[in-house]
Amino acid sequence: MYRYYIPHELKIGDISHLADNDSSVALKKGIKIEDIVEVETYTSVFQCVVTDISGKSIEIEVLEKIEDRKIAKQGGSLTIVQSISSEKKFGLFLEKIVEIGVTKIIPIVSEYTLEDEKDFSKNTGLWKKIIKDATDQSRNPYPPTLEEISTLSAIDNKIVESRIRIALSTEDVETKSLHQILANQDVKGSNIVVAIGPESGWSTKDLDVLKKMDFQFVRLEGNILRTETTALVISSIIKFVRGEV
Amino acid sequence: MYRYYIPHELKIGDISHLADNDSSVALKKGIKIEDIVEVETYTSVFQCVVTDISGKSIEIEVLEKIEDRKIAKQGGSLTIVQSISSEKKFGLFLEKIVEIGVTKIIPIVSEYTLEDEKDFSKNTGLWKKIIKDATDQSRNPYPPTLEEISTLSAIDNKIVESRIRIALSTEDVETKSLHQILANQDVKGSNIVVAIGPESGWSTKDLDVLKKMDFQFVRLEGNILRTETTALVISSIIKFVRGEV
Repeated sequence: MYRYYIPHELKIGDISHLADNDSSVALKKGIKIEDIVEVETYTSVFQCVVTDISGKSIEIEVLEKIEDRKIAKQGGSLTIVQSISSEKKFGLFLEKIVEIGVTKIIPIVSEYTLEDEKDFSKNTGLWKKIIKDATDQSRNPYPPTLEEISTLSAIDNKIVESRIRIALSTEDVETKSLHQILANQDVKGSNIVVAIGPESGWSTKDLDVLKKMDFQFVRLEGNILRTETTALVISSIIKFVRGEV
Repeated sequence: MYRYYIPHELKIGDISHLADNDSSVALKKGIKIEDIVEVETYTSVFQCVVTDISGKSIEIEVLEKIEDRKIAKQGGSLTIVQSISSEKKFGLFLEKIVEIGVTKIIPIVSEYTLEDEKDFSKNTGLWKKIIKDATDQSRNPYPPTLEEISTLSAIDNKIVESRIRIALSTEDVETKSLHQILANQDVKGSNIVVAIGPESGWSTKDLDVLKKMDFQFVRLEGNILRTETTALVISSIIKFVRGEV
């Protein structure tokens, strides 16, 4: 059965409305007054009755709680260290990373970062809104923390507890495959950090900083991924290996 | 060493220019006239010399071929059957699916598809442009084929040769995890088809059609992914299991 979603908590007897997108779906499915529908919140699933339909607005009343939502258990944390990029690219990166469900995002400036740090910080309100909207849309019970922007070398004290540290790299440095790094490790229980450089890559100095912080370098096979795509691809794979997708 | 990219073939002695994005990178790195740089095309890597810099335009001359590009070998094909969505969402889906590298895309209309088939078909020029641009950007040597739009039941003759058929589902139907489906199968050698329904899900009729075509149903753990995100997440995982990422 299709479950409509209401992004705030409900209790029995509450009157609420389906979101626009859910209303379109409901109308397409031929919803009628007095129909019984299932509505999901962050924490619970409720049985509701349709009390009014006017235009595209569908009003429901909460009848009873059916169950608590099954929320996937999470193992170790997943932190993404991401070099800042344009508003559009970073926005898209944030949206997708919230959907797949990472723990923490640390935006960084490295030597070849093309974007301006000040322009990036001006958008803090926008980043928070994107995270909030994507959290609602994806019904993510564990939205990520967005840290303040920092330099690459300053991240060390923000990621102290992580045993698996991966830096994506196309540079001339000793690299492993993702399979090599994720095999024979406690991927499920370990905190993992993934560092993704700017489109222009890491500098020799950046690579030294990463090595000192015990990052292992991964070169992806296949096509060149855009900087805003890489984190989602890697996170999907890590979540799959952990059994969280 | 950072490799600049020119999305057409080159031969020794050719004069060409770096793309805008690559020029920004090069200028950031302090490129100078007479510097030697590496330039990659679809098939080869060349050593080039910088012959002119005026404003943001960087002219290079091709000196010699260093090597043929290593192109990741691909196993079985990966076909995505995707219910059509809005221009923005379908465009984003296409762009990402080209980057990760799928073989074929079949857009479909199923019972609860909200989008209009005619509006979708009007955009054929746009879809081709997105595929072309993403193919260039991601240096994808195997761009996907975009089939004509069809109904769900009409896809059967377009995917005859595939042994592993997966339909994403949140509906009340017997589902497996991706791990269960991808384990103990010849994932590398088999042609795989993944079907992704509209935001409003599959209807009971759609589910029957899929069952008749031997699709297995997968319910993803974790958050609800947007329809334009799902294909990239699944494709990333399949490519990882195949050793192609």
